[in-house]
Amino acid sequence: MTTAPRTGVPAGAPIDDAEVAALDRWWRAANYLAVGQIYLLDNPLLDRGLVAEDIKPRLLGHWGTTPGLNLVYTHLNRLIRERDVDAIFLAGPGHGGPAAVANAWLEGTYSEVYPHVSWDRDGMRELFRQFSFPGGIPSHVAPETPGSIHEGGELGYVLSHAYGAALDNPDLLVAAVVGDGEFETGPLAASWHANKFLDPVHDGAVLPVLHLNGWKIANPTVPARIGREELLSLLRGYGHEVLTVEGREPADVHRQLAAALERAHDTIRDIQRAARERGALDRRPWPMVLLVTPKGWTGPVEVDGRPVEGTWRAHQVPIAETRQNPAHRAILEQWLRSYRPEELFEPTGTPVPGVRALAPDGPRRMSANPHANGGLLRTPLRLPDFRSHAVAVPEPGASIHEPTRVLGGYLVDVVRENPANFRLFGPDETASNRLDAVYEVTDKVFEGEIRDIDEHLARSGRVMEILSEHTCQGWLEGYLLTGRHGLFNCYEAFIHLVDSMFNQHAKWLKTTRGLSWRPPISSLNYLLTSHVWRQDHNGFSHQDPGFIDHVVNKRAEVVRVYLPPDTNTLLSTMAHCLASQHYVNVVVAGKQPVFDWLGPEEADLHCARGVGIWDWASNDDGEPDVVLACAGDVPTLEALAAVSILRKHLPSLRIRFVNVVDLMRLQDATEHPHGLSDRDFDTVFTAEAPVIFAYHGYPWLIHRLTYRRTNHHNLHVRGYKEEGTTTTPFDMVMMNDVDRYHLVMDVIDRVPGLGSRAALLRQQMGDTRRRARQWTRDHGEDLPEVREWSWSELAAPGHGRSPSTTANPAPIDVL
Amino acid sequence: MTTAPRTGVPAGAPIDDAEVAALDRWWRAANYLAVGQIYLLDNPLLDRGLVAEDIKPRLLGHWGTTPGLNLVYTHLNRLIRERDVDAIFLAGPGHGGPAAVANAWLEGTYSEVYPHVSWDRDGMRELFRQFSFPGGIPSHVAPETPGSIHEGGELGYVLSHAYGAALDNPDLLVAAVVGDGEFETGPLAASWHANKFLDPVHDGAVLPVLHLNGWKIANPTVPARIGREELLSLLRGYGHEVLTVEGREPADVHRQLAAALERAHDTIRDIQRAARERGALDRRPWPMVLLVTPKGWTGPVEVDGRPVEGTWRAHQVPIAETRQNPAHRAILEQWLRSYRPEELFEPTGTPVPGVRALAPDGPRRMSANPHANGGLLRTPLRLPDFRSHAVAVPEPGASIHEPTRVLGGYLVDVVRENPANFRLFGPDETASNRLDAVYEVTDKVFEGEIRDIDEHLARSGRVMEILSEHTCQGWLEGYLLTGRHGLFNCYEAFIHLVDSMFNQHAKWLKTTRGLSWRPPISSLNYLLTSHVWRQDHNGFSHQDPGFIDHVVNKRAEVVRVYLPPDTNTLLSTMAHCLASQHYVNVVVAGKQPVFDWLGPEEADLHCARGVGIWDWASNDDGEPDVVLACAGDVPTLEALAAVSILRKHLPSLRIRFVNVVDLMRLQDATEHPHGLSDRDFDTVFTAEAPVIFAYHGYPWLIHRLTYRRTNHHNLHVRGYKEEGTTTTPFDMVMMNDVDRYHLVMDVIDRVPGLGSRAALLRQQMGDTRRRARQWTRDHGEDLPEVREWSWSELAAPGHGRSPSTTANPAPIDVL
Repeated sequence: MTTAPRTGVPAGAPIDDAEVAALDRWWRAANYLAVGQIYLLDNPLLDRGLVAEDIKPRLLGHWGTTPGLNLVYTHLNRLIRERDVDAIFLAGPGHGGPAAVANAWLEGTYSEVYPHVSWDRDGMRELFRQFSFPGGIPSHVAPETPGSIHEGGELGYVLSHAYGAALDNPDLLVAAVVGDGEFETGPLAASWHANKFLDPVHDGAVLPVLHLNGWKIANPTVPARIGREELLSLLRGYGHEVLTVEGREPADVHRQLAAALERAHDTIRDIQRAARERGALDRRPWPMVLLVTPKGWTGPVEVDGRPVEGTWRAHQVPIAETRQNPAHRAILEQWLRSYRPEELFEPTGTPVPGVRALAPDGPRRMSANPHANGGLLRTPLRLPDFRSHAVAVPEPGASIHEPTRVLGGYLVDVVRENPANFRLFGPDETASNRLDAVYEVTDKVFEGEIRDIDEHLARSGRVMEILSEHTCQGWLEGYLLTGRHGLFNCYEAFIHLVDSMFNQHAKWLKTTRGLSWRPPISSLNYLLTSHVWRQDHNGFSHQDPGFIDHVVNKRAEVVRVYLPPDTNTLLSTMAHCLASQHYVNVVVAGKQPVFDWLGPEEADLHCARGVGIWDWASNDDGEPDVVLACAGDVPTLEALAAVSILRKHLPSLRIRFVNVVDLMRLQDATEHPHGLSDRDFDTVFTAEAPVIFAYHGYPWLIHRLTYRRTNHHNLHVRGYKEEGTTTTPFDMVMMNDVDRYHLVMDVIDRVPGLGSRAALLRQQMGDTRRRARQWTRDHGEDLPEVREWSWSELAAPGHGRSPSTTANPAPIDVL
Repeated sequence: MTTAPRTGVPAGAPIDDAEVAALDRWWRAANYLAVGQIYLLDNPLLDRGLVAEDIKPRLLGHWGTTPGLNLVYTHLNRLIRERDVDAIFLAGPGHGGPAAVANAWLEGTYSEVYPHVSWDRDGMRELFRQFSFPGGIPSHVAPETPGSIHEGGELGYVLSHAYGAALDNPDLLVAAVVGDGEFETGPLAASWHANKFLDPVHDGAVLPVLHLNGWKIANPTVPARIGREELLSLLRGYGHEVLTVEGREPADVHRQLAAALERAHDTIRDIQRAARERGALDRRPWPMVLLVTPKGWTGPVEVDGRPVEGTWRAHQVPIAETRQNPAHRAILEQWLRSYRPEELFEPTGTPVPGVRALAPDGPRRMSANPHANGGLLRTPLRLPDFRSHAVAVPEPGASIHEPTRVLGGYLVDVVRENPANFRLFGPDETASNRLDAVYEVTDKVFEGEIRDIDEHLARSGRVMEILSEHTCQGWLEGYLLTGRHGLFNCYEAFIHLVDSMFNQHAKWLKTTRGLSWRPPISSLNYLLTSHVWRQDHNGFSHQDPGFIDHVVNKRAEVVRVYLPPDTNTLLSTMAHCLASQHYVNVVVAGKQPVFDWLGPEEADLHCARGVGIWDWASNDDGEPDVVLACAGDVPTLEALAAVSILRKHLPSLRIRFVNVVDLMRLQDATEHPHGLSDRDFDTVFTAEAPVIFAYHGYPWLIHRLTYRRTNHHNLHVRGYKEEGTTTTPFDMVMMNDVDRYHLVMDVIDRVPGLGSRAALLRQQMGDTRRRARQWTRDHGEDLPEVREWSWSELAAPGHGRSPSTTANPAPIDVL
């Protein structure tokens, strides 16, 4: 520990010895329960000396951070009772699962949620046994932990989750413990700046507690070793007033921390009152606590002659050989008894009244606060009918719209109808993604300096923009987990940044699906635009369509992937996604102008089916020679252009045109709830005709999804390849061989017996393709016949018909 | 612009008007060339008025950041000449590709590297035309850009790359421009702390230049709007002395910047001299420059009545309609002429002597500095024979080692033999990953406070640990790109954090493979351990084996994936990877004790083959009834356990045992350079026997890789599924159905005609499996027959034979 002077906390001790003792009792009880979870199978109250059989055969868990988490929890309980605060608790060092579980059990919530872990001796034994035990609970703060919205696995997201939870919850205090290891991560470092996006009028407050216990697994932490002044400079630079609490003598630290939390709360209320009552909207530093206490505090000081408490050796299990080694077991027993469990628990195992008294009542208990179980608070979005913004499509391909721009108009209504529980998140791309119509009814929220030249920037608003995909994702997760709704819009090229965050959230959804006490939350909706086929300003350095592959590796019941091919299908898809619950929905759609293929009703039916034959583009009369299938807006355009070429030059070739919006429909019904039955699949794709599939992403995914289908051996997929440098859009398509010319050649190659006219056409296609490529190199734009192509050239009786035929599958309910 | 007082820069003007004019000439020339790249197809020197045909049909690129990059480059050139500095330039706002290209052309390097872009009028026309044009160069700073080691696509990595480049280059100055948009990203925010890992004695220096131009695509930047004092507090908290340069009058800014760079250089040399000559190793604040100038400076002030210069509207192409709209074209012409090109270029197009004079000579030109073309400087690692650390394996499965611990011993030699060009990187996991033997010969480098209790922490060392996977990856990339060698060790659970960084690096490798002037660099080596099957302390929140899938989506010529099943195979694999060039090698290997299967020679041969039949585990005599294949250490263990059960109970069943180390061997030779020929594949896996494949990762990848193989329809893969919560190792395996019992059942299900004894065994397996599961739940550890199983129970004549048979494929050269 350094001996730098404390700052910020008033010198006087506001609490008396009795209150110190009461706080210390709760803290000891929580620490006792935490150690019990890590070590004990039995003998939970130490009625007898510990024997080998009382100890778990495999010791897992993280002790080091636990006493600090318990300490903060203890003192928040005091603050909640003293000031009637509505608060939730986020444990950034979420490896400290024992702490969150211990406090939930002490508050009685754990036994309410899990009656088999009762509030007595038997329950305590089960509480201990289940921890990080086969069939039990994880060693982290987890979905299973009452009161948590923050998975404690991968570090770095506690502040962005906390800020997401605080948005639009003006009376909520979100306490967020930041570990000093986690402090080193990028996502956490960026998320300190979330305080520039917290509106003191309409949002609640976040109270960061940076817990400087000094050590990671095997190293000191950076913030603990840069000198206190430098650290304080950094934290003030992040926009905080820093209240330092430092010590290793419990009573002293209790006094300091109680005072610090009161002062922090006073400052928060002062900022909020000033903003709410006096319109004082200029940003002031929000308080935070810098808590400096030993790692593994109150644990064994030394084991086998080596210091443990206050060192990295306290990180996980400080005494490892407790089952085998009687000397180690004696240290453990001494450690457990040092908390004086007989003062904390009745002989029945229930906490004594003097401990229980610290817990707030009912939903004021942080473990029972409904904000930490957002499904309880969630109300459905008020969603206008997407048809009110749909574009008229008298015939397919005769008009052009920018899909996301039209979607922006729809989102105007969504924002208007849901002024306090829906937000848009994006890394400075909302306007670039052409959703800027929303600025008709709302603004981008920003608490930094606002100047006259700024547009659509205000102290409050529904749009959150920061150039950190991690922070956007964390905000949205926190917002959803507390029962609200949102949409993350992002360039497809950059979404891999949050691969691992998606992982954790998807696992959260999967796990909570099995927890009846956690009602569903809103889906996490991604709109990926500026996609890989239209990378105008973004060279060719990093984009890839692999986020879809990443998502599809997760459990089928929580993921959905949509590739709407035009404006109305995007509207319909997004309306479905916004209404849905407990999924991750990935919607990939371009922002560039594309032809309109389907009218509003056709689009809605097509999206509800997820996959369908487009009659107006087909001439197969039920018996196709070839199926031309596609998924994604650019592949759909190319596939239709290929159809127009084929039908012009080979009019007797019977082509079926299939478009896929809902990628999961391709899977077997046994693999995914959206999966088509084999019969439906065969009806659409046939059991024997060659299928040429033009796909937005890596072609392998289509093979994987259709692997068990009857006609799979006849499937030829063209999709995204890792190629090229700088390209125009069609050039990009050609470099990936997903162009109309290649698709025509594929058809000719795969349909037997087409004859010499087809052979000639095949040759022409190759020539035209080379000419098209050369043209882009000479002129910097596409060949006129590519630029000017339109489907309506082919317009003929029967076009403009609905996409519905009896061969199409029945609609599914995407909710 | 704010009017906060400047800090840190001496008041006096150290340079005279002539020098200001000279600097300004270079800057104007670079700006002119940048605007030309964005707009012009022809008329490069404006010999006549601009006409529509002179303008590109599609205008792409980022003007906003470009003048700032040009300004910094200009002044670095002055510093290089004045002080004979060895410097390279990293452009964080790498969208400003025109700047890097312009300066490289002005320095003559561009024409040296690309003779068709000559140093004259024709070359200038080609320089302009090729920019972001089909068949040309990307709009970003890219691998194609001479002098760059930093891909300008996804933002956030410039500081970690810069620090990686500076390591072990004591005389190098790495200038790193940080954009104020990029400043908001998590990876960038974390990487400021890289200065706590820069050894002033043995490493060079990094000079960060935070360019506060105030705007992103559509928003102000956070650092530009938090108030100057708060920003300075933050930057000082990051450990820097801040030299502010601010203005909008060029001559004034030239004077300030020249002085600031001199002062920064003085401070850097002072810190280095103090450390090197006087042993003053206590960390002092390193200098950085805060450069505050308008976005799109010197561009159009206003277009169509709206302010452009100094606003977000200058971000990309400030005047969009220049081809179609004569008024816009006139603004463009006026803008270009404002640089007075006639003063900057000879009528022939070559820069005038007054411009050329600013460029340093030869390799002192930042565009020609060999540090930015690391393959030129790379020397092969001195690699000891791995056999010197191999474990003796008199018979398979009779001994046990921790593979990564033994690897640690090998790395001791690598570190010892390569004291200045090899480093280990990891997020605080090197010891946890059991590589801590390296601390016998080196330390973890740390420039923060070091205390007595710390172990293996020193002011210099070969191990870099920070709890930021992004920073570790960035460091390693920077280190490799400047010609050195390294290894990133990471828990498999957390490696998805760098998915998108891997993407950019893989694309860099792929692109530079086609650039003959860039010799190969060392491979980026990942050791992923604490893998998903052995997640002891890490609950079940986030881990997944999908990084392999992510990697395999990249171009085959740059990625390699290895799954060594035991200690000697890990040693052999890692020795190969460390010697290799220009790949990304992903090695997945456990740290927990595993049986030794192969002796050193057998391991080496097996790894060189990549896939092979293990004779000692097979009894097929060339005609197997079934092939049991595996990849990964845990699947190998389970597959061998399954073999032992089968051979005991069904001795007449002819089993072939195949192990796969090099996953890419499964692919077709046409898809991957390591791919087996179909004939070799069929020889190993047979053309018709059922194949049961136990795999470390998601099973789909194995199907994908073997999709075109003869026997693929007979392949049944068991791999990782998204399941479970808390588990012991074998429990985890069982939840994923990759356990020995399931593998035995699979074999019985798929080999026809095995009869009643097999049916009985199948039933027993189901029973045992249920019992094993229940046992873990009752006892918290595995069933004794699982814990105590060993292959040597089956030991019999013929065991311990080499894995080589004539059926195995020939070794490949992995270099």
